[in-house]
Amino acid sequence: MKVSIGVSNRHVHLTQEHLKILFGTNFELEKKNDLTQPKQYASTSVVTIKTEKSQIDNVRVIGPVRSYTQVEISKTDAYKLGVNPPIRDSGDLEGSSPITIVGPNGYVELEEGCIIPTRHIHILPTQLELYGLSGLEEVSVKLDGEKGGIINNVHIKVSEEAFFELHIDTDDANAHLVKNGDIGEIL
Amino acid sequence: MKVSIGVSNRHVHLTQEHLKILFGTNFELEKKNDLTQPKQYASTSVVTIKTEKSQIDNVRVIGPVRSYTQVEISKTDAYKLGVNPPIRDSGDLEGSSPITIVGPNGYVELEEGCIIPTRHIHILPTQLELYGLSGLEEVSVKLDGEKGGIINNVHIKVSEEAFFELHIDTDDANAHLVKNGDIGEIL
Repeated sequence: MKVSIGVSNRHVHLTQEHLKILFGTNFELEKKNDLTQPKQYASTSVVTIKTEKSQIDNVRVIGPVRSYTQVEISKTDAYKLGVNPPIRDSGDLEGSSPITIVGPNGYVELEEGCIIPTRHIHILPTQLELYGLSGLEEVSVKLDGEKGGIINNVHIKVSEEAFFELHIDTDDANAHLVKNGDIGEIL
Repeated sequence: MKVSIGVSNRHVHLTQEHLKILFGTNFELEKKNDLTQPKQYASTSVVTIKTEKSQIDNVRVIGPVRSYTQVEISKTDAYKLGVNPPIRDSGDLEGSSPITIVGPNGYVELEEGCIIPTRHIHILPTQLELYGLSGLEEVSVKLDGEKGGIINNVHIKVSEEAFFELHIDTDDANAHLVKNGDIGEIL
């Protein structure tokens, strides 16, 4: 089964409360462009993520606001920042890494919230059987190319609002020379 | 067959001529520490690599000097620098990317010389049969872990001075959460 690939650069999800602290009381996120997952969008806003060791500027805020604040980075970013975040699904933040988010209006010091996102495939419940993925929690996906390979530990993420797509981080993409919109094959 | 893994960070090899331009006429490379490949060492010297778009400081010079000057970077570095280097074995530089190397004494503008190194395994001729790799140009290697997988297109690099080891770049290492000294399995 073929699957299109979405490459996720480092990004931030914010609660309404943290959005206000970072950008001001009456601030609302503005859409820069839609993402492939329904209702999700890259906003026009960016923040700085910061540790004692280092910082990374221009980290995109993804909208809309969520019930949790979460910073998603790659292992390459983690080395730069001097943190050791766990590999996690979205929202599974217990024991994840501390990080500080800095906006134009203020900052938020998170005791936990920084993760490296799990490799995952977004899929609708109705597509599971159709695509031969019923009952599977993880699959492997073949990535072709001059530095091709097979990535394991790809979580199947079922939701009622999903666009069928493999999401990988920039380390996975750059290691395999894969770009947004390339095609992988679920094994 | 198990193989230990060496992770290559971005680095530079220099000719004697370029070493003089960058560091001064009577300059000689000083050993910081030995690398696992015989006679190769990380020197105490670093340079800046530079393009019109950006630059990366503190890039390690590997000694001893060679018959060619070569800049080895990852795809992540390539995006930062705005170059599109080919995936190449060491010394195969025809048509590779232009880049400028800056040292404390001067700079060298290379018309070609910047590559992303091929994934490769160093091996002695006498080890080929022993390890079941006779006649193979490429193999795949399994990397275990929480973001495990199989990397393809791993070149077999036979030489009379080799320490049996898999060399991958930081993108491959970070994508699979692999560190220097970890173990892979040749398939």
